Amino acid sequence: MPFEHFQKIFCPGSVAFVGASNNLKTAGTPLFLSILAAGYKQPIYPVHPVEKEIFGIKAYSSILDIPETPDLVIFVVHHDILIKLLKECGQKGIKQAVVITAGYNETGSRGRAKEKQLLNAAGRYGIRFIGPNCIGVLNPWHHFNCTWFPYTHQPGHMGIISQSGSFVTQMLPFLAGLGVGVSKGVSVGNQSNTDTEECLEYFGCDEQTRAIALYLEGLKRPRAFFEIAGKIAQKKPVVVYYVGGTEAGARAGISHTGMLAGKDELMDGLFKHAGVLRAPDSETLFHWAGAMSLLPPMKGNRVAIIGNSGGPGAAFADCAQRSGLVIPVFSQKLQSRIKGIIANIGSAKNPIDMTMDLNIDSLMKILPKIVIESGEVDGILHYGFFGPIHHEVKLSLLDKKIRDLARFEKDPFPAYEKAAKALCALSVKHHFPIISASFHGGYDPCQSILRNNGIPVMPCPEKAAQTLGAMWRYTAIRQNTKSISL
Amino acid sequence: MPFEHFQKIFCPGSVAFVGASNNLKTAGTPLFLSILAAGYKQPIYPVHPVEKEIFGIKAYSSILDIPETPDLVIFVVHHDILIKLLKECGQKGIKQAVVITAGYNETGSRGRAKEKQLLNAAGRYGIRFIGPNCIGVLNPWHHFNCTWFPYTHQPGHMGIISQSGSFVTQMLPFLAGLGVGVSKGVSVGNQSNTDTEECLEYFGCDEQTRAIALYLEGLKRPRAFFEIAGKIAQKKPVVVYYVGGTEAGARAGISHTGMLAGKDELMDGLFKHAGVLRAPDSETLFHWAGAMSLLPPMKGNRVAIIGNSGGPGAAFADCAQRSGLVIPVFSQKLQSRIKGIIANIGSAKNPIDMTMDLNIDSLMKILPKIVIESGEVDGILHYGFFGPIHHEVKLSLLDKKIRDLARFEKDPFPAYEKAAKALCALSVKHHFPIISASFHGGYDPCQSILRNNGIPVMPCPEKAAQTLGAMWRYTAIRQNTKSISL
Repeated sequence: MPFEHFQKIFCPGSVAFVGASNNLKTAGTPLFLSILAAGYKQPIYPVHPVEKEIFGIKAYSSILDIPETPDLVIFVVHHDILIKLLKECGQKGIKQAVVITAGYNETGSRGRAKEKQLLNAAGRYGIRFIGPNCIGVLNPWHHFNCTWFPYTHQPGHMGIISQSGSFVTQMLPFLAGLGVGVSKGVSVGNQSNTDTEECLEYFGCDEQTRAIALYLEGLKRPRAFFEIAGKIAQKKPVVVYYVGGTEAGARAGISHTGMLAGKDELMDGLFKHAGVLRAPDSETLFHWAGAMSLLPPMKGNRVAIIGNSGGPGAAFADCAQRSGLVIPVFSQKLQSRIKGIIANIGSAKNPIDMTMDLNIDSLMKILPKIVIESGEVDGILHYGFFGPIHHEVKLSLLDKKIRDLARFEKDPFPAYEKAAKALCALSVKHHFPIISASFHGGYDPCQSILRNNGIPVMPCPEKAAQTLGAMWRYTAIRQNTKSISL
Repeated sequence: MPFEHFQKIFCPGSVAFVGASNNLKTAGTPLFLSILAAGYKQPIYPVHPVEKEIFGIKAYSSILDIPETPDLVIFVVHHDILIKLLKECGQKGIKQAVVITAGYNETGSRGRAKEKQLLNAAGRYGIRFIGPNCIGVLNPWHHFNCTWFPYTHQPGHMGIISQSGSFVTQMLPFLAGLGVGVSKGVSVGNQSNTDTEECLEYFGCDEQTRAIALYLEGLKRPRAFFEIAGKIAQKKPVVVYYVGGTEAGARAGISHTGMLAGKDELMDGLFKHAGVLRAPDSETLFHWAGAMSLLPPMKGNRVAIIGNSGGPGAAFADCAQRSGLVIPVFSQKLQSRIKGIIANIGSAKNPIDMTMDLNIDSLMKILPKIVIESGEVDGILHYGFFGPIHHEVKLSLLDKKIRDLARFEKDPFPAYEKAAKALCALSVKHHFPIISASFHGGYDPCQSILRNNGIPVMPCPEKAAQTLGAMWRYTAIRQNTKSISL
């Protein structure tokens, strides 16, 4: 079985944890609590020289005392004692480890010598490990989270492989806010024993993972990366964010994970030829991979723009064209159908501009349905769904006397929820990608209805257009058409 | 007085409003309520053929019945009756108007004829107006908001001139979330009588406005724009977001405001030579102009990166260099001072990586102070300030039994608030630009402490780096050094 050790790392049947105590100020304890908070359902064995119980769970004074052979051991201990502990794992027969501990390659020549010792010791006992200098792994489908941050969203379909712990942890709330669920996440750290390339291969075969987000500071095996990524890209999208391309980025990478970075133009070429999409920043990495993990693919490059506001419509249009998409003028037949629905000062050509007509049925159901069924486009960029929360805020600012006279519609939320779900249902029924945009973020609860039902809501129109553009480029990669350069 | 009519539009001593009723479903009423919600302190005269009172305020059946000559009249009426109403304004002596009404140039040849009539009628009575097909003006310093959305932040120093109403209204909550206050905002609509160029000239002289955000679909008077913008750019930054550069963007602009767009490379050259910064998208427009309205200028291009996490540090470094900044390796002297503060597995070179050391005093006070006082850099990119909210979320996910054992620090907020304010104070005291980044957005209340005290918090490291890069480019423009091309 080629991925046996990965299976035991990401779906362990039991876990030993060395480095947690009842003291919340140590590094290991919050991580231990993440495992408990995720509702991990299998046995967990804290190991501690003194404590008898850790947060109510029986602790063992040595790895050797654990009553079974755990699938996985997690180390958050000082690097000085790690070799001794690995030896105990060897005696116990534990074959998989996650080494959070830092102080190796990333710190210079003495660290490099230590990392070599670590690697040799693990090899001696047949132990495969993630790290060192990493922040753990995450598998929401297995209720397993050994990272610092809690995971609060439902399990999903975006895999994260990262050479930075922060990009598998600190953006978990951000991903939850985007409505993007994670399938599996791994912080590879210094990649001493298990590298990005192997993780990529594993994620490529993982059924829960539909799109892969990759944060890179450099590649240990560029040729292997090229081959593996090229193969995976035929099955599922791989989006990469690479920071080693400048002198400053490369220098930062060395002090961070000891990685040697490749020149920007070389790496860029490698990504292009492997069919990997390169994201310009960390936010975009998660926007693109997240949307691709949620949405059906773009079958072509023609896009309809539907909204109730001209500025965002123009922003969509300009940016979509820059992103390699086409915004066709609708046929006369389609235009006249649309004209029958929108105000006569609106525009039916594409962008459709409802011009401040706030009829949510037109915006969320009627227009998208007509446009999808026309067969004239392959995706929709959507703007203008905001709930009456601005009315509510305004009410709160008014004098009581006026407020009482100016009651806005009471509890309009059910109508908005119905409308939002209608749009989501259209996307599912027709297997049709739709991306929405809003400046309102968490401010407007209506956005969450879309997000929680599979339609991404981007923070501005251009992000939505760029994401749909990236989705089309991925389709083009899979179709083996010549790559669309931007 | 060159800007007399602008003064009366943005700081009216009294306002007539035609088009509001007690019916919340009409277009004008929510706009009227915005004025009331903003706490406008001068007389306001609703005009309505039937209603005697509108939200408790005495209404007049005709403009002619108003007991004084208002400084400004706002029209949200059908275009068919506008000429008749303008005539009444002429008789009454009203010289300034905001015409929200749409259905003109943007709708084709019949609309164009109507707009000509409108312009002629206004000329006949000496009336200057904003619009038509606009969404009003905003002046938080005068408690005056005749746009659809409520204004919820304190008055600030970013001016917005926009050829789209959405970009002066729908992003108001987004700006409030960023901690960016508006000085004045105007939606110029079809610019029939008052164009972008004139508004720019006015904002250039406005004392409350320290930076100008400009949304453009095209220019009516490119030469005038070039001259005015070039002059203003020597005093305050002008950031533009232009969407007419592609065929699709230009087409969308025509149906939106009837503007004819210029070719991308020509407009790009015009902006560059005028010293105007071009933002790549709407979000960035407000990030850049917002930060520049809040922060002291970049005196040079050298940047320090301070954080507790390697990935975001590398992302800062790579993106800062791409944005024209330099990330110098600190002097040995400075490095040893820093080494005395951070963990020995951290990095003191620049980026400073505290490696998951969550000591907020080091992060928010000690390290920034040392770095600023070293004189080795001109700005700071800052990462890693998040409150213990992830602990709180984790606690809420744990079983009650464990939760009781695992109490995290109680009410740590005062300590975080103190630390955040210390960083803000350093920026003010040393007149030193600092930008922070966080993936946590509204999720973490600690971010607001920074934002509300003048340190922008961007949604990801790259946005922060790009913003500081744009600030440096603006400094270079003012210094009349040769422009730094990217």
